[in-house]
Amino acid sequence: MWRYQAPVADMLYLMATVNGAPASWSECPGFEGLDADTAREVLEQAARFASEVLAPTNSPGDLAGCLWSESGVTTPPGYREAYQAFVEGGWPALACSPEASGQGLPQLLNAALFEMLVAANHAWTMYPGLLHGAYEVIKGHGSDEVKGLYLEKVVSGEWLATMNLTEPHAGSDLGLVRTRIEPVALQDGSAPANGTPVRVSGSKIFISGGDHDLTDNIVHLVLGRLPDAPAGSKGLTLAIVPKFMPDGRRNTVHCDGIEKKMGIKGSATCQMRFDQAEGWLIGKPHRGLAAMFLMMNSARLHVAMQGVGHLEAATQNAWAYAADRLQMRAPRRPEGATGHGPDPIAWHPAMRRILYTLQSRTDAARLIAYWTAQWLDEAEQHPDADHRRAAADHVALLTPVAKALFTDMGHRSADEALQVWGGYGFLHDYGIEQTVRDSRIALIYEGTNEIQAIDLVQRKLLDDGGRRAEALRSLLAQEVHACRAHPETCAFADALEQQLSEWSQTQAALLTAAPSDPEWPLRAADDVLMGIGHALMAWAWARLARTALVPQMAPPSGGRTPSQWLDSARFGLEWLLPQAQVHWQRARQQNAALPWA
Amino acid sequence: MWRYQAPVADMLYLMATVNGAPASWSECPGFEGLDADTAREVLEQAARFASEVLAPTNSPGDLAGCLWSESGVTTPPGYREAYQAFVEGGWPALACSPEASGQGLPQLLNAALFEMLVAANHAWTMYPGLLHGAYEVIKGHGSDEVKGLYLEKVVSGEWLATMNLTEPHAGSDLGLVRTRIEPVALQDGSAPANGTPVRVSGSKIFISGGDHDLTDNIVHLVLGRLPDAPAGSKGLTLAIVPKFMPDGRRNTVHCDGIEKKMGIKGSATCQMRFDQAEGWLIGKPHRGLAAMFLMMNSARLHVAMQGVGHLEAATQNAWAYAADRLQMRAPRRPEGATGHGPDPIAWHPAMRRILYTLQSRTDAARLIAYWTAQWLDEAEQHPDADHRRAAADHVALLTPVAKALFTDMGHRSADEALQVWGGYGFLHDYGIEQTVRDSRIALIYEGTNEIQAIDLVQRKLLDDGGRRAEALRSLLAQEVHACRAHPETCAFADALEQQLSEWSQTQAALLTAAPSDPEWPLRAADDVLMGIGHALMAWAWARLARTALVPQMAPPSGGRTPSQWLDSARFGLEWLLPQAQVHWQRARQQNAALPWA
Repeated sequence: MWRYQAPVADMLYLMATVNGAPASWSECPGFEGLDADTAREVLEQAARFASEVLAPTNSPGDLAGCLWSESGVTTPPGYREAYQAFVEGGWPALACSPEASGQGLPQLLNAALFEMLVAANHAWTMYPGLLHGAYEVIKGHGSDEVKGLYLEKVVSGEWLATMNLTEPHAGSDLGLVRTRIEPVALQDGSAPANGTPVRVSGSKIFISGGDHDLTDNIVHLVLGRLPDAPAGSKGLTLAIVPKFMPDGRRNTVHCDGIEKKMGIKGSATCQMRFDQAEGWLIGKPHRGLAAMFLMMNSARLHVAMQGVGHLEAATQNAWAYAADRLQMRAPRRPEGATGHGPDPIAWHPAMRRILYTLQSRTDAARLIAYWTAQWLDEAEQHPDADHRRAAADHVALLTPVAKALFTDMGHRSADEALQVWGGYGFLHDYGIEQTVRDSRIALIYEGTNEIQAIDLVQRKLLDDGGRRAEALRSLLAQEVHACRAHPETCAFADALEQQLSEWSQTQAALLTAAPSDPEWPLRAADDVLMGIGHALMAWAWARLARTALVPQMAPPSGGRTPSQWLDSARFGLEWLLPQAQVHWQRARQQNAALPWA
Repeated sequence: MWRYQAPVADMLYLMATVNGAPASWSECPGFEGLDADTAREVLEQAARFASEVLAPTNSPGDLAGCLWSESGVTTPPGYREAYQAFVEGGWPALACSPEASGQGLPQLLNAALFEMLVAANHAWTMYPGLLHGAYEVIKGHGSDEVKGLYLEKVVSGEWLATMNLTEPHAGSDLGLVRTRIEPVALQDGSAPANGTPVRVSGSKIFISGGDHDLTDNIVHLVLGRLPDAPAGSKGLTLAIVPKFMPDGRRNTVHCDGIEKKMGIKGSATCQMRFDQAEGWLIGKPHRGLAAMFLMMNSARLHVAMQGVGHLEAATQNAWAYAADRLQMRAPRRPEGATGHGPDPIAWHPAMRRILYTLQSRTDAARLIAYWTAQWLDEAEQHPDADHRRAAADHVALLTPVAKALFTDMGHRSADEALQVWGGYGFLHDYGIEQTVRDSRIALIYEGTNEIQAIDLVQRKLLDDGGRRAEALRSLLAQEVHACRAHPETCAFADALEQQLSEWSQTQAALLTAAPSDPEWPLRAADDVLMGIGHALMAWAWARLARTALVPQMAPPSGGRTPSQWLDSARFGLEWLLPQAQVHWQRARQQNAALPWA
């Protein structure tokens, strides 16, 4: 009964009509040939894959899970066939550069693709989920030999890739990593460098896709320490370790077991053992973390898209169920309603609240996520260096907010949506409980949401004296002025202006007090992130409302009507935005007691 | 690694020292002999059963689940032995009246017992969970023959009982129930009455413990319709249908299958088929729903206790893990901290926020729940009829709030607690993900939380013109005055006074507007309930703070110190109570758009 139809019309309306992506593409070399029609074709093909090939494997894969044996991991039925279709469709190469045999399309379209994949089957999407990151690391840091051996295979998806960071004692604190990376064949006494052959020894946990049966080879990127490494996170080095060596030998990397998890059960979460495994150093010695951080923004944006995907899947399934399920007479019925029996639960106020909560959050999250992806594309591709720098600043600030806010909303909204099904929601057959379970991991991995908040406050808001935040607020304030011009959107302008003012005041208070009370920003971090998240949603609802009221910007045919977009935006303004004040108030109460635990 | 130690010292402190239960017991005939020491003994014995016998079956039971076959349901390993120990301990009879061979102890102690059981193993607790309700229905409505056959067996727990309400098309809307109850042996043309033998035919779903291997017989209470029944919920009749007839024949009631669920996997959720099954009418024809509603308050309070149990289990496990797990240096360290390595994550501000959120909610929820249970005891046992009526009024209003608020907090707090474990929290081995899954059902069953809110607003706040709410607020306002007397608790007095004022204003607005805008109370219902819930928590934190500051009322030895209780209360006031304003604001915005879905 669970289904997923990618909302291509909504996606295209948001990226093209509301955010004006085609104008951005026309300014960026490499994207000039791209227009809304081509984007629509790409999205429609992706939608067919997600809805028709991938979505049917979601529920059975959750029940079957992965099987581990000494000889390796077996993925659930249908996963391998879906992956082959994915590779044949050329999807792994979508946003890779043409020099590396990629299609050179924007990150924005890749983000929309991954939104669809996660909505259709989160567990399966974990396997190709790290391909783009591995591509960026190998392309950006690999030696020519390593690039020659692995880049093309990763771009095409013929071989899958993993990231090996976590160890049992080293989770958020990667400075505690102990895995050893030892240079070989350096008898001449020269220092290890990029491309130096190494032997890797150590144990890693939580390795998604550490072993599986989807591809003939697996390329592991491993964080460890050279023998002379300084302690802490500044002594980490990156190595690449393939499952099979170029000459066909099986490397000494083993999957010792897989975890029993709350969700994404079709994704093999592996305990890995590297036993003098052969590989090559990637990038500079002791600079492994920096090399990995390079890919952090796009990886975190992908996790943010997981939140959007779960929001969409929960929303569309809740609407469908609520329209069909008849229980009790509604206290008020839509005009023209007939019949004397029980009404669809979608007509009952308590259910309308849940349904519109889902819809308004989905719309706002998707708009902000696509906007962030568009800035990411401009940060990489815009011809003007100043513009690239400004865009990169926006991305730096938007990314931790998007990651934490959307994964939080994705999971909690799925959990709220479950209530629409009543008792049926608790049953596996109806799918929503799986979405609740699957979506939970996104609040943890790729930096927990608490770590995102600390990153935001310490490294994005305070480190530069507030410069980047000021620039982003100026940009958002343009929407205040635009909304002032229409009487129907004045309430949106007021609300957004107030949010920007709260943000500005809070940041000023933190900047002033941080030197004397360095713990305050950390106590406040979660609320600051959620406050800024609500400011961004206020911007999104304002922009959606204003766009809906401009006749020449009507949504493409087949999509929702302007008044439907307006309903969603108004609901967000009136029912969801009030939550912001709690976050701003708590963020600013410097003296609130936070006792020792 | 998951463990549960019932917090007997906390429980006793709240019920005896803070709420003064012994004084209440001394006023109620039947409880006069009971004092705090006896209560402690009962709680300590219950704690031993919960922690030592029951808790070890929790995690294995989740993995094993129940097995269905044509011949019946097999429960997970250890369930049967735990149930035998439970019966041998006399626990089912705890709060049953001595005339019915019960122990005649207060509902309050039974509530604390069920809090422990759920915290130790929610799935298992589903089996005895309906015993007390069945006892009340049979004792209050059964014919002498039915009482003679079933009452003692249910009081002792020798036979377990079920409630058969839901049908596939009839969930929240029980008016749609179709199961047929046909009188037999009424050839003389007389009308069916209490005790009339009947044949029951129909299908029921979501029947907890509909079949199992814990007891030799199972007693089903079934809601259905007599042949001449009026349509809707006023035509429902109750019947009792045993699995085995008194002469030993197997009755024609079958379990056709069990559900695959998100959680409480050790609880068999059965699809039941009654095929001309034999039984007896219970209570008056067409008054089945009223008979079931009699037991609603205590059943809903039991579900509220499930929320408290999950809160406690999540809280104590999160504290234990956070104290052991070392990651990164804390930005500030407790005085006297030594060592140069990474610090316990319990010292990091983001984790302290989660830990105190859990602790403050647990303390407030337990205090309110015990207070409600104490009113329930006084409503039933107090010698003064006016006092009983006033107590029943408080219970009527407190119960839907407690059910919805505590189950919501129990589930969401477990979900927030999971974050303390990081990636480990997503693994089955650490237990918290099971608590998240198990706790989810409590928001749905025994009336969804949305139904609780509608019940509260329509039947408890508006129907009597606000009389009961006014009485409860007067009672809560006594704490305002008491807190004014101490400079240290003035902030609590102010906060509670403001909450009572918000409640009063909101209720007045709804009362005035409801006749002309009857949908408004329904749009506002969820926020009204949460607003009142926060008012109650403001009362609880005030009361905890004030009690902690009275030297002669110090907690019993072995429990938390007064300053620890104060920390929890202050955190609630400063970090959690601000959420109330969102609920009051939304509840009062009459004109907020809630579009058609």
